[in-house]
Amino acid sequence: MPRVITLLTDFGTADGYVGEMKGVLLAGAPDAMLVDITHDIPAQDVEAARLTLARVWRRFPAGTVHLVVVDPGVGRDRAALAVASDERFLVGPDNGVLSPALLITGNRVVALESPANASATFHGRDVFAPAAARLAAGAAIETLGSPVSQPRVRRTPEPRRTGDGALLGEVISIDRFGNAITNLVGMRTGTVEAAGLSLPLRRTYGEAPVGGPVAIVGSSGLIEIAVRDGHAARVLHLTRGTAVLYRAAP
Amino acid sequence: MPRVITLLTDFGTADGYVGEMKGVLLAGAPDAMLVDITHDIPAQDVEAARLTLARVWRRFPAGTVHLVVVDPGVGRDRAALAVASDERFLVGPDNGVLSPALLITGNRVVALESPANASATFHGRDVFAPAAARLAAGAAIETLGSPVSQPRVRRTPEPRRTGDGALLGEVISIDRFGNAITNLVGMRTGTVEAAGLSLPLRRTYGEAPVGGPVAIVGSSGLIEIAVRDGHAARVLHLTRGTAVLYRAAP
Amino acid sequence: MPRVITLLTDFGTADGYVGEMKGVLLAGAPDAMLVDITHDIPAQDVEAARLTLARVWRRFPAGTVHLVVVDPGVGRDRAALAVASDERFLVGPDNGVLSPALLITGNRVVALESPANASATFHGRDVFAPAAARLAAGAAIETLGSPVSQPRVRRTPEPRRTGDGALLGEVISIDRFGNAITNLVGMRTGTVEAAGLSLPLRRTYGEAPVGGPVAIVGSSGLIEIAVRDGHAARVLHLTRGTAVLYRAAP
Repeated sequence: MPRVITLLTDFGTADGYVGEMKGVLLAGAPDAMLVDITHDIPAQDVEAARLTLARVWRRFPAGTVHLVVVDPGVGRDRAALAVASDERFLVGPDNGVLSPALLITGNRVVALESPANASATFHGRDVFAPAAARLAAGAAIETLGSPVSQPRVRRTPEPRRTGDGALLGEVISIDRFGNAITNLVGMRTGTVEAAGLSLPLRRTYGEAPVGGPVAIVGSSGLIEIAVRDGHAARVLHLTRGTAVLYRAAP
Repeated sequence: MPRVITLLTDFGTADGYVGEMKGVLLAGAPDAMLVDITHDIPAQDVEAARLTLARVWRRFPAGTVHLVVVDPGVGRDRAALAVASDERFLVGPDNGVLSPALLITGNRVVALESPANASATFHGRDVFAPAAARLAAGAAIETLGSPVSQPRVRRTPEPRRTGDGALLGEVISIDRFGNAITNLVGMRTGTVEAAGLSLPLRRTYGEAPVGGPVAIVGSSGLIEIAVRDGHAARVLHLTRGTAVLYRAAP
Repeated sequence: MPRVITLLTDFGTADGYVGEMKGVLLAGAPDAMLVDITHDIPAQDVEAARLTLARVWRRFPAGTVHLVVVDPGVGRDRAALAVASDERFLVGPDNGVLSPALLITGNRVVALESPANASATFHGRDVFAPAAARLAAGAAIETLGSPVSQPRVRRTPEPRRTGDGALLGEVISIDRFGNAITNLVGMRTGTVEAAGLSLPLRRTYGEAPVGGPVAIVGSSGLIEIAVRDGHAARVLHLTRGTAVLYRAAP
């Protein structure tokens, strides 16, 4: 059975950078199956890439190699990493984007060596893709570089408890439908306050009238604010960082 | 030979929803080959998804599983369907998006049961992808749910004959190039009237001068209105629903 | 091992044209592995497609078939080509888009015959994809058509030497990050002049201050102008064709 290699970048596809990486992957691991996660991460948005990776990486079968290249620090001194975590592999820059796998106990992390002829600006092609191909072809991660003990880790900000017992969180991302996803882990009942609104927690978008705001527990288990058949972020002026308060039912 | 699973959604790719579905598909059917049709259907545009599906589904080999998730009614009471039709399989919501396969005689339709732990908002991951994986892995469609006798069907509007013997149709979609595709099945000759213009039917875009409007029979056999090396919809103010008249050659 | 077929088009994916081509490819070559290069070439931009193809085509393993459809002349009299070059195959219109492979010595080129029932407007589906599938399934290129001796070739404009010994080149493309890529083959040192700026050649983006302009040798070996953590084309008003001067270090 071929090993799966997924790709997650901010490259778009039109310029051919992703195409070059795919060629390198298949040249090094001809049996691999390539699966696009996305190439539409906003340019250099490490945080968006981290949250997208968090959603997907453990859905894939054991043995999958995730190639993650959102790399504003390319050519500066950040390390290049390969990670083995929970039976999957990940390859990408040491800027926190791989944190979802780095936060799992028992992971192993190595720093990739740059080939002598690597370009200074495109490690996706010259450093990360060759390492991903080697992992997909069965190489042991220890053969790819020397151990790293303190990779950079980013964490989703934690909500904090307010004086009156509510939880103060924030919007951490806006999805394509305009839904604002928060860092508040979902409860079954209670009230969500944001943008001057107070919204009882519902189960589905459909419990709001068309065009009306609604707070639900989304598919990642986090509270999100939506507008039925509308774009909540635009309608309610929600952006990453907007404060959101959760109050348990009395 | 691996079974093919295609994906057709309005999710975009950046948020990771498509990535989650791909992980679920490969976890359930590790031999499957995943093929992206598109994730760029306009958000919640069931009609656009239906027309795109109509173009593609029977081009694929027998045994292909088409996973179609454009699902504004998720979490409300619409059923979740699996369909066997003309040697292919389709999985998606009961909102008419699967109509191209439902209009073929001899099809079988079942209503999928939701797993107990399915989210209320992401049936693509929790209901449809697991069913598609089971079909790709060889499960009989009857094992996925109970028969449905009246799935929701959408149809392209039919042109109607006018008092003077012309056919009155309309624009049903605008493609990426700005070409306006109508519901008028193509003839070899005749005249097309729309947007104040009267255009003799041509064979190719190239028979118009650069920047000039032209009516042709497009690659799906339908009359379309184009502007050579231009964007007909913007130049001629054509949108979905714009009336288009066809008169046979005298 | 399955043969790889890559796809490079300006079709976008939403309309289903790419989906139709993928169905035709798999119907004709069920073992093939489909790999998307891009469908986001600007509509009818043959030059952009040529430059993207140049980056990617030889990165793929021997035997790969590249299907390239950016075809503003469809239905007019341009030929449809299949090319064997440097152990890979390419299929696409005779408008110069396949030039990267046509400029390699020892290539073979044939003109594809159009099937009798080919549409006049979608040769990607009706002419090119069937030929790509046949090549992927192992057909000899000579069986696909008759030899062509003078296919249309496009070349990147050559820089020219100025009276005072500098090299006068130009911007040939703008990538997703806003970097302006020139036709000047990179040197290790020297000065780049464009948009009223004089920039010493650096090794990486990181050698500029945030928001500052920088000239480097990019990952294709060409000089490019970037703005650190910014969009050089917008900030510096660079477009395709903008003059760029290179002066060697004294």
